[in-house]
Amino acid sequence: MAKVNPYEVSGNIDYEKLIKQFGVSKLSPALVKKIGTDNLLVRRGGFYAHRDLNKILKGKFAIVSGRGPSSKMHLGHLAMFKAIRDIQKKHGCFVFIPFSDDEKMLVKGHDFNEVRKMAIENAKDILALGFDPKKTKIMFDLTDMNQDIYNLAIRASSKLTLSTIKATMGFKDSKNIGSFFYPAIQAAHILYPTYKYNVPTLVMVGMDQDPFVRLTRDVAEKLGLKKPGDLINIFLPGLSGSGKMSSSDERSAIYTTDSKKDVEHKLKRAFSGGKETLSDHRKYGGNPDIDASYLYLKYFFEEDDKKLKQIYQDYKSGKMLSGELKKYAISKANTFLEKHQSARKKVKLERYLI
Amino acid sequence: MAKVNPYEVSGNIDYEKLIKQFGVSKLSPALVKKIGTDNLLVRRGGFYAHRDLNKILKGKFAIVSGRGPSSKMHLGHLAMFKAIRDIQKKHGCFVFIPFSDDEKMLVKGHDFNEVRKMAIENAKDILALGFDPKKTKIMFDLTDMNQDIYNLAIRASSKLTLSTIKATMGFKDSKNIGSFFYPAIQAAHILYPTYKYNVPTLVMVGMDQDPFVRLTRDVAEKLGLKKPGDLINIFLPGLSGSGKMSSSDERSAIYTTDSKKDVEHKLKRAFSGGKETLSDHRKYGGNPDIDASYLYLKYFFEEDDKKLKQIYQDYKSGKMLSGELKKYAISKANTFLEKHQSARKKVKLERYLI
Repeated sequence: MAKVNPYEVSGNIDYEKLIKQFGVSKLSPALVKKIGTDNLLVRRGGFYAHRDLNKILKGKFAIVSGRGPSSKMHLGHLAMFKAIRDIQKKHGCFVFIPFSDDEKMLVKGHDFNEVRKMAIENAKDILALGFDPKKTKIMFDLTDMNQDIYNLAIRASSKLTLSTIKATMGFKDSKNIGSFFYPAIQAAHILYPTYKYNVPTLVMVGMDQDPFVRLTRDVAEKLGLKKPGDLINIFLPGLSGSGKMSSSDERSAIYTTDSKKDVEHKLKRAFSGGKETLSDHRKYGGNPDIDASYLYLKYFFEEDDKKLKQIYQDYKSGKMLSGELKKYAISKANTFLEKHQSARKKVKLERYLI
Repeated sequence: MAKVNPYEVSGNIDYEKLIKQFGVSKLSPALVKKIGTDNLLVRRGGFYAHRDLNKILKGKFAIVSGRGPSSKMHLGHLAMFKAIRDIQKKHGCFVFIPFSDDEKMLVKGHDFNEVRKMAIENAKDILALGFDPKKTKIMFDLTDMNQDIYNLAIRASSKLTLSTIKATMGFKDSKNIGSFFYPAIQAAHILYPTYKYNVPTLVMVGMDQDPFVRLTRDVAEKLGLKKPGDLINIFLPGLSGSGKMSSSDERSAIYTTDSKKDVEHKLKRAFSGGKETLSDHRKYGGNPDIDASYLYLKYFFEEDDKKLKQIYQDYKSGKMLSGELKKYAISKANTFLEKHQSARKKVKLERYLI
């Protein structure tokens, strides 16, 4: 059975069921168009659900998307932040990216220095994508807590009962008090742009984080602030063909720090939609919809819709072989990573600190 | 039955029992001498219990004494801060006075703007006593949260389970999550000087706040920081002769903002240890130990030990009448308040902000 909550995503995901379970709205193609960007993830089905997106797109808004620091970032993470960058470009909106190093310490029990290091490396990856420095702020909770955000967190915490948090998070009394308090900090992250600029926040997250957004909507109402909405992305498929990409499973994803050889190695061994033998493949064709290399092209690398369509048809008909598809994906991935890794070195975090 | 916990102090206090109940040490006259100040409250029994004071006095230390903002401050509050000022003078120690406006909002449900106003007024009262500006810092949690203190609070919160907090505070699940988290903030207040200067903190509080200190001692150990100790004051008697002074009961105390007429009015109506008739008083004498005016002289106004002793004897023998005692106390109180109210106007809070 699939399991989705803020601290666990596993199993095969039934998106229709999730939409019902979490009480969010399905994202319609018409609404996708209104987002108004040709970002790959946006226009190729990388988002599937939302709260109040229609309402939010009618006026000015800000985007908040936090990052729970992890040892490495994979392309799935970057794709999400690229979408944020592109929506910022289109709408000129303020983007706030808080690094919840505190949550990692509290809920996951990570060591402070370790989390700190990861947060800095993650921030470089995200900012290397090219956000507008005038409209983008980051914050590392544990070392840079902003006074407005602390103030908002305390006010949010005054509106959230322990019962509510227990019901949402499922923590036991043996858990530390910081874990129970953390949703107030996350609410403060989300409400910060609203408090500062009086615009609603669009939270861009996976469904696993939607419970926080729901709590924050209640809090906003009680504090007399505009309610945030969210835009929810699919769990991007891992290289093994099942489950989502993971920061902790080395084989499941391409990381931003991977070398050309790593990428080649990983994609060559990635799950393929091709047939077992060459003759079967030529005869029956492959299945691009479950092929990791194809999906990487679709969501990350192949900007050219015609080219992608051609690959889809050729692979499906058996004209294109798995080896050829992989080779193309490898070359695209490595071109991207080369650029990214060079941009990453030039990022000046200080420019973006809140 | 007397009740003492962080959120309630009522009934008649049995100090010996409290010492046992809270597991603190009784303050010996020898240890009082080691404090080394001739502060009235210190040398006249205003403190009665402690944790680790002997150990702390052996080296450098800091003092932390917070203030939960109240609409007014009374002389009991000031007496405590005067003792802190005098210990600072003697030992040259760093003093940190955090204003827990956040706690007032969370636990007591006060309005933010209201608490803010009270905190500022309270801070002026405290600083008017004349702390060393180079060694004294204040912080209003809700508007000036310091990044080191937030960091400490999160680390403290990772070491405190919800079960522990529930057992200590007695809150129900219907209480807001901020109330459960607040002990971590208080721990951070206490541990801040230790974190910053590597000296142990002496917390100067009433017994009602000792549970926080106990929690913080555990936290300090787990974070590898020096353990704080505390010095616990008696609940200073109210004007009515029973119960302690209160910020919310107008008749129970002399406030820092009282006019000369207020003081006269209050002390004239204050609980007296005198006899009902003049002749009985002359014959049997009064009881200074329960006389509010005498106790005000003892703890707040009469620096001269000989003079105080004379008053004690004269009142006890019946030579001094209640009216005479009251008149003397009124004049002493008004002299103090006149000076205090003038000093209060000159306080520049910005000099002390963390």
